[in-house]
Amino acid sequence: MLVIMYKNATEEQVEKVLLTVRDLGYTPIPNPGAQRMVINITGDVDLLDTNKIEGLGGVMKVIRVTKPYRLADIEVKGDPTVIEVGDVEIGGGTRVVIAGPCSVESQDQIVEAAKAVKECGADILRGGAYKPRTSPYSFQGLGSEGLKHLEEARNRTGLPIITEAVDTESFSLVESTADIVQIGARNMQNYALLKRAGRSPKPIMLKRGMWATLTELLAAAEYIMAEGNHNVILCERGIRTQSNHVRFTLDLASIPVLRTLTHLPLIVDPSHAAGKRDIVIPLARAGLAVGADGLIIEVHPKPEDALVDGAQSLTVEMFRNFMNSLDDFHGSRK
Amino acid sequence: MLVIMYKNATEEQVEKVLLTVRDLGYTPIPNPGAQRMVINITGDVDLLDTNKIEGLGGVMKVIRVTKPYRLADIEVKGDPTVIEVGDVEIGGGTRVVIAGPCSVESQDQIVEAAKAVKECGADILRGGAYKPRTSPYSFQGLGSEGLKHLEEARNRTGLPIITEAVDTESFSLVESTADIVQIGARNMQNYALLKRAGRSPKPIMLKRGMWATLTELLAAAEYIMAEGNHNVILCERGIRTQSNHVRFTLDLASIPVLRTLTHLPLIVDPSHAAGKRDIVIPLARAGLAVGADGLIIEVHPKPEDALVDGAQSLTVEMFRNFMNSLDDFHGSRK
Amino acid sequence: MLVIMYKNATEEQVEKVLLTVRDLGYTPIPNPGAQRMVINITGDVDLLDTNKIEGLGGVMKVIRVTKPYRLADIEVKGDPTVIEVGDVEIGGGTRVVIAGPCSVESQDQIVEAAKAVKECGADILRGGAYKPRTSPYSFQGLGSEGLKHLEEARNRTGLPIITEAVDTESFSLVESTADIVQIGARNMQNYALLKRAGRSPKPIMLKRGMWATLTELLAAAEYIMAEGNHNVILCERGIRTQSNHVRFTLDLASIPVLRTLTHLPLIVDPSHAAGKRDIVIPLARAGLAVGADGLIIEVHPKPEDALVDGAQSLTVEMFRNFMNSLDDFHGSRK
Amino acid sequence: MLVIMYKNATEEQVEKVLLTVRDLGYTPIPNPGAQRMVINITGDVDLLDTNKIEGLGGVMKVIRVTKPYRLADIEVKGDPTVIEVGDVEIGGGTRVVIAGPCSVESQDQIVEAAKAVKECGADILRGGAYKPRTSPYSFQGLGSEGLKHLEEARNRTGLPIITEAVDTESFSLVESTADIVQIGARNMQNYALLKRAGRSPKPIMLKRGMWATLTELLAAAEYIMAEGNHNVILCERGIRTQSNHVRFTLDLASIPVLRTLTHLPLIVDPSHAAGKRDIVIPLARAGLAVGADGLIIEVHPKPEDALVDGAQSLTVEMFRNFMNSLDDFHGSRK
Repeated sequence: MLVIMYKNATEEQVEKVLLTVRDLGYTPIPNPGAQRMVINITGDVDLLDTNKIEGLGGVMKVIRVTKPYRLADIEVKGDPTVIEVGDVEIGGGTRVVIAGPCSVESQDQIVEAAKAVKECGADILRGGAYKPRTSPYSFQGLGSEGLKHLEEARNRTGLPIITEAVDTESFSLVESTADIVQIGARNMQNYALLKRAGRSPKPIMLKRGMWATLTELLAAAEYIMAEGNHNVILCERGIRTQSNHVRFTLDLASIPVLRTLTHLPLIVDPSHAAGKRDIVIPLARAGLAVGADGLIIEVHPKPEDALVDGAQSLTVEMFRNFMNSLDDFHGSRK
Repeated sequence: MLVIMYKNATEEQVEKVLLTVRDLGYTPIPNPGAQRMVINITGDVDLLDTNKIEGLGGVMKVIRVTKPYRLADIEVKGDPTVIEVGDVEIGGGTRVVIAGPCSVESQDQIVEAAKAVKECGADILRGGAYKPRTSPYSFQGLGSEGLKHLEEARNRTGLPIITEAVDTESFSLVESTADIVQIGARNMQNYALLKRAGRSPKPIMLKRGMWATLTELLAAAEYIMAEGNHNVILCERGIRTQSNHVRFTLDLASIPVLRTLTHLPLIVDPSHAAGKRDIVIPLARAGLAVGADGLIIEVHPKPEDALVDGAQSLTVEMFRNFMNSLDDFHGSRK
Repeated sequence: MLVIMYKNATEEQVEKVLLTVRDLGYTPIPNPGAQRMVINITGDVDLLDTNKIEGLGGVMKVIRVTKPYRLADIEVKGDPTVIEVGDVEIGGGTRVVIAGPCSVESQDQIVEAAKAVKECGADILRGGAYKPRTSPYSFQGLGSEGLKHLEEARNRTGLPIITEAVDTESFSLVESTADIVQIGARNMQNYALLKRAGRSPKPIMLKRGMWATLTELLAAAEYIMAEGNHNVILCERGIRTQSNHVRFTLDLASIPVLRTLTHLPLIVDPSHAAGKRDIVIPLARAGLAVGADGLIIEVHPKPEDALVDGAQSLTVEMFRNFMNSLDDFHGSRK
Repeated sequence: MLVIMYKNATEEQVEKVLLTVRDLGYTPIPNPGAQRMVINITGDVDLLDTNKIEGLGGVMKVIRVTKPYRLADIEVKGDPTVIEVGDVEIGGGTRVVIAGPCSVESQDQIVEAAKAVKECGADILRGGAYKPRTSPYSFQGLGSEGLKHLEEARNRTGLPIITEAVDTESFSLVESTADIVQIGARNMQNYALLKRAGRSPKPIMLKRGMWATLTELLAAAEYIMAEGNHNVILCERGIRTQSNHVRFTLDLASIPVLRTLTHLPLIVDPSHAAGKRDIVIPLARAGLAVGADGLIIEVHPKPEDALVDGAQSLTVEMFRNFMNSLDDFHGSRK
């Protein structure tokens, strides 16, 4: 950790910083420069709160070089984490495709969707039984009934299932059905939910909050991992910016940057960012192009009837064409 | 609701939209313009999902004029909501000051802080017993012990208490101590927590998420109100933007704009946005200048010893000077 | 154009809006809905300033359906614009690669760079003679001498040249050398420069401002086109957001969305957004994956000696590997 | 300047960095920490491009502690700059009010406006003769004729004039009329214009770009100052963010933060950010509350007839009430 002093900081102010650092149990090394003093703090400063020092007189800023996460850090574990879900592997350069409707609407709908996406080549079925919605008056999902429909879809197709847990109350129910449990973007810093997920035997897919830095995303993953569940998949799904031509700005640079920071598998969700189906496929292709380990895409047998997010759901035909095109896309998918 | 068609939309596409709208149980009124067709959908369209129509051929965009909230809407209830907490009123033009440390660290610390802020003129004591932290390795608050210390501080000073509930598990405990329960920014769309708050007899202060639009903030308040608890206070605490000179960008225009949208009381938190104590007081003054019903400010008897957010905590002396200055600030505070 | 009135707008307020619209020479069509009045304004409202109406009593908001540009509009010209520069075509689905150093530093450097990128398969050479720099104390480019070095590089390799014009003063000199003149992101709304570019016989590549909406980008292109120069290429180079892990957030969704709005060729610049060379190639691949007509990439023979932007410049070897990989990337490049 | 190495950086990589720094003529001081090596570079590193080092192997990041500006730096000149325009002083804690219409529309309009705002207590008259507009088809201002009208308004009222120069071509004409020349937000990094302004005898008001960091704003001011004109006024007018309830997010924290960085006078423009007149006055009050040296506000005698920005222009009556209220606002204005 580095403490940068103002040019005109007094000797007393520098002394106070050195004293404070020592009181906290760390070793400060002062480096007087031509223009200003810089103080290097050595030792295991992960747990040292920069606030203690930022508020002292004469301090211009404090720069933390260390990180608020450990288990997720590629400097701690260099090999990529590969998560197995049935026969499907996620991570380490895979190109997994997760597909299905935004929400489970009926047994017929999800079974039809499952058959269709399987036939197109999808590896895993998505479908929400519990839906977080902006308005309390919007359709909130079928709940436990939706989970039963998902089980039926898995029985019929053999596809593993990913579905979202929106709170600790319903987590156990979701966990008992799902092959992968999803934590949504709005819940990225819902710590009770993250800790519960950390005690689950099932892999967790954690979506990046629409506000979150990569450091915050990795610290959120750390909440799960610190409880013992190291099978965490990270998902880029877009951030909120001034761009008003799509719902969210898909921040695709996060994928190659995350590769330099973490060993966890990385998935891209092009559907929520696009908001409109014509934009989904270009973004899906871009997700693979930046090196994601896979995609999660909304596909609906009859998008015009969808209860949620119909406008951004691909038709089965669009999805089939997309999957077929992948064979020509930088070699085959697997 | 308005459906804007592309200039080159075909008659068949327009017909399909009209048919779809009628199938959904609404009445479409086509308005052929010089350049393009616009279709007005009348009736109570609050529950109509725009997705159903956005995905149809020839549709350029769908504009929702209605809102995803009702009880919070000033068009539904014109008079300002005034919430009573002991002798303190919040809303309708009050200038309440809530002050105290970020987190409760010991009985001595919170009692000392309570006495100090009361003596300076604060109306309500703040202090976190449960702290949501980015890293799982940071201090997470004293929990139930912290709540007991808060009770002691209230007993000694008579100040009402606001403290945060971070999850449904600990909500009942927090609720039994607090005079106002705070929902933090990261939990603004934690719907299980919002619903639980909606079943509480205590007023709720809901902080705006650092990503959230005002529509989303009001829809989050609606989750609480729809469960029966209409005593909701909204708090602007800054959004995340490209500005890198402060922690968050305090979006003060939200206060006068919210006044045109809702009857709920509005509070400004200048401390978290500022991140550094020298910036807190100018922003606090600005919060009153834009017409907030009050402020929530971090004050710590010994900021250099604070376990959390010390750099942004005012000293008691700074807070006293600020409170004294308010008497000259556009008339007295009450 | 649509005028949405408040629910409680009075008849007098509605009348005042109708009267104002008629006074401005347009025809208002009132549509009384179940909840509120919506007024549709027909006719050629491109030139109607919404401000005239937004300020009237009872008006909730005004929605402009028309656009502040015409010549750039795909609804006006449906066929893609294809721009010819020597033997190179840009637009209509091409995959042009523009490459070279950020700035021209010497004749040897730019000639060496030109030979190297040509040998790797680049179509056009980039290199800045005039450099817009944040600080007045940074290297500002070699100016007219740099242009001579670019000419020499073209003579030796046959590659067409793109280079930036930073002001109207030096535009003629740049124009006389360049095959394509670049307008940089900071100058996207420098209208004197845009108008001057509009009177040039050379094609213009206009970079999106780091703040700009797509509507503003197209309106900026319109400034050029309205002066008579229809050969405008648009370039996505990243916007400024809260993301702090790269310099700018490359907004790749802009490419497929712009395809639905304009016929102009679209280029992606992955280098400035990435800021670090390891991130450039994934973003370059993503640029092609979303359907751009080409890429502009920084390549430097000796990046460690670069005067500007060395950290984001590819080495020749990295660029060669990238170009070779394109043959396998969704079919060959041409 | 600080170079942070990766934990696993090799000795060779560290040596390469040390060598490179020495080759550039600087002195590197290695600080081996418990976890990683940090290298401090001393000397006058203002002109050292971090790019040279960021691209080297083993380098995690380079942190620049120095700044890309000097003359604007409060560490160089501690006393506040106070600029005199006629009898009016700007800077050092003044509360100047600049008011008038967005654009000059006729002699009658601007003279009427000047009389009205003077009578209300304004210190300086604003009015645009040259208007930068998003669309080439929008009203672009009266040009030189508008300047004559402004002169007439000054003759009649004695108020000094501020008006915008949009390009170097018309700068001399604007400069010969104006008492203060404004550089608009879109031109904040139009370096030819900044340099021309730097050779002007008139004070310059430089508006912050809607994308710009404070460092970039100060570096832009430095372009003016480095040419010899030290009379620069900075103006906060809002940045572009995800907030969609106003045109721009007024970043009021910039004022107290700029106070810690620069000695230049600071003005707040609440009108462009608000976009709607009801929001202007709360933001104006907030601008004074955070400690700006003054305000620039749009006032129009007949806002409903305004050719530009009518919706955000105050009526004379609203402005009068605002000015009267200032006497009660934290002491009198002067």
